[in-house]
Amino acid sequence: MIIRSLRFKMAAIGKYSSIYRTSPEFDFPEPSSGKLGLIKLPACNYGGKYGTEVKTSFIAPLRAIEASITSQVNTKAENFQRSGCDSHDDLPTNDCNGFSGKSRPQTSTIGNSTNIVWHKCSVEKCDREELLQQRGCVIWVTGLSGSGKSSLACALSRGLQARGKLTYILDGDNLRHGLNRDLSFRAEDRAENIRRTGEVAKLFADSGVICIASLISPYRKERDACRALLAEGDFIEVFMDVPLHVCEARDPKGLYKLARAGKIKGFTGIDDPYEPPLTSEIVLRQNQGLCDSPNDLADTVISYLDKKGYLKA
Amino acid sequence: MIIRSLRFKMAAIGKYSSIYRTSPEFDFPEPSSGKLGLIKLPACNYGGKYGTEVKTSFIAPLRAIEASITSQVNTKAENFQRSGCDSHDDLPTNDCNGFSGKSRPQTSTIGNSTNIVWHKCSVEKCDREELLQQRGCVIWVTGLSGSGKSSLACALSRGLQARGKLTYILDGDNLRHGLNRDLSFRAEDRAENIRRTGEVAKLFADSGVICIASLISPYRKERDACRALLAEGDFIEVFMDVPLHVCEARDPKGLYKLARAGKIKGFTGIDDPYEPPLTSEIVLRQNQGLCDSPNDLADTVISYLDKKGYLKA
Repeated sequence: MIIRSLRFKMAAIGKYSSIYRTSPEFDFPEPSSGKLGLIKLPACNYGGKYGTEVKTSFIAPLRAIEASITSQVNTKAENFQRSGCDSHDDLPTNDCNGFSGKSRPQTSTIGNSTNIVWHKCSVEKCDREELLQQRGCVIWVTGLSGSGKSSLACALSRGLQARGKLTYILDGDNLRHGLNRDLSFRAEDRAENIRRTGEVAKLFADSGVICIASLISPYRKERDACRALLAEGDFIEVFMDVPLHVCEARDPKGLYKLARAGKIKGFTGIDDPYEPPLTSEIVLRQNQGLCDSPNDLADTVISYLDKKGYLKA
Repeated sequence: MIIRSLRFKMAAIGKYSSIYRTSPEFDFPEPSSGKLGLIKLPACNYGGKYGTEVKTSFIAPLRAIEASITSQVNTKAENFQRSGCDSHDDLPTNDCNGFSGKSRPQTSTIGNSTNIVWHKCSVEKCDREELLQQRGCVIWVTGLSGSGKSSLACALSRGLQARGKLTYILDGDNLRHGLNRDLSFRAEDRAENIRRTGEVAKLFADSGVICIASLISPYRKERDACRALLAEGDFIEVFMDVPLHVCEARDPKGLYKLARAGKIKGFTGIDDPYEPPLTSEIVLRQNQGLCDSPNDLADTVISYLDKKGYLKA
C-alpha cells in the first residue's frame, strides 16, 4: 500500500477510477484515445455493489488463501480484504535487483511442491468481471450418462453468448483428449479427473468467464470438494435429474449397452453408484414425463443467473 | 448442415448474421432488447478476414482433431473447415431418446481413457473472439528464476486490461497451489507440470482469452510440445534473456542462495540446464546493461500483439 501511495494519485469518477501517472512506469495508453499519461483501470469494490450475501462470498477465498500460503501473502490478502479489489500492490520497481532483502517473499511447501511463492497480480477477478460485465463462476452440470449434460452445456453457452456473455465449456470427455489424457477410468483416476476439472474451472471463474463444467461426477464428496475451491456463490450445481431407465433408453453413446453386456466395468448407474446432489442450486427434471428441450432447460439456468446478478458486473 | 438449414434463415447484416427463429427451440432474447424471436450470434469466418497466414493457423488444429478423434467428429471437422466458424451442427433435438442409432457417435480411446466421445459445441473460438474483440492465444514467458517473468506477466496483464483486453495469467508457482499441487520438482513431475500448464493454456486460448503463461520451463522439447498443442500463430514464446549472474544477484525468492548451498537440488541454472529458445517470437534482453522496467518490456510485447492483429477479432 505504501508503494501505491507513492506512485498514484487516484480519483474516483463514476465506476472507474482515473489513475494519473506519477511514475514513468505506467506507459500504457488509454483504451479509447491511445494517449499516454492517463490510464483508466476499473477499480471495483464488491462491498459497495452487492448485499451481505455476495460480500461474504468474496471474503471466503481470501480466508482460503490465508490458510494455505506464505505469511507475506497473508499480509497482502489482508490488505486486499480491507481495500476491496483496487489494491495494486504488486507494482514493479525499476530496481534491477528485484525485491530487497526486507521484502523478500517467503517460500512455502504446497502438496508435493517445495519452495514456491504465490505471485499476486494487480489485475484481479473483479477487474476482469468489470470488463466482461458478468460474474465469473462455475456452473457444474452433474448427472448420469445420457441425462443431457452436454446438450444443456451447449444450449447454455449459445444462450449466454447471444446475450453477449463469455462462457467456456469444460466437458469431461473432451478434457480426456488433453489435460486428462493420462487418466483411466479407475476409481482414483476418476477422482483425479474431477479434481483437475474443478481446479481448471476455478481458474476460468477467476478469469471472469462463466465456466460450464459438464461431467457425470457421480460422487457427492468429489463435487463438494470442487465447490469448496470456490467462493460462496461462485459454484452453481445443476443436477440433471433424469431417471436411469430414460438415460438407458436414450443411450446416446451406446455405453449402457456395453455396460449391461459387461464390456465396461464400473459404469455409473449400472455397477457403480450415482449420488444425487442433496442441495444443488438447480434441479432440472422431466416435466411430468414430457421432455423439455435443452434450450428450455438452458433458459431456466439463464433466468437463475440473471436473477442472482451473474450477468452483470 | 441439413439440420441447420431446417432451423434457421440467416441473413448477413454487417459483421453479424441475424438468425431468425424458425424453431421453438431458440428462445433466447436478443442481448440489447430482451425481445424474443430474434437473436444475434456472431458468424465469423476467418477466411474472409485474414490473409493466408492466419487462415492456415485455423486449419492446423482441425487437422490435430482429425488425427486424434472419432470418425464422426472427423466429418464434423471437415464441415467446419469448409464452412468457417458459423457451423452450428450440434443443435439439440427435441427427441427424448437423444441420438438415433444411425447418428450414434463412435467412442474412442485417448491415452488411458477408453470409450470417450468428443462433444463439439456450436459456440466456437471465433465466436468468443468476436465477443471479446481479440484473438485467444498463449503468451509463453520462459526464462531463469529471477529473470522477471512474473513481473512482465503482471505488467502485460495491466497494459492489456487498460486497453480493454481480457488476459489471464498462469503462473508456474501459483498453479502448484492448485491444479499441480500433487507434483514435486522431480524431473518427471516438472515435465508433467509443463504439460498440464500447456493444456490449460490451450483451453484459455480456445476460450478467447489472451493467456499469459509464466514458467521457467527450461527444456526446449517441453516448450515445443506446448506450442504444438496450439494452432500456428497462437503460441507466442517470450524469452526473458537475462544472464544467470544478473538473476542470481537479484535472487528475489532467495532460491539461488539455497541452491548454491546445496539445499535445493536440480535448480535451473545451477545444477540443472536451461535451454534458451532458438526461435522464440520475442526476446527481451537488457538494453546495453540498462534495466528496462517491466512496463517497458510489456510495451514491446503489446506492440507485437497489436501489429500481428491479436488485439482485434
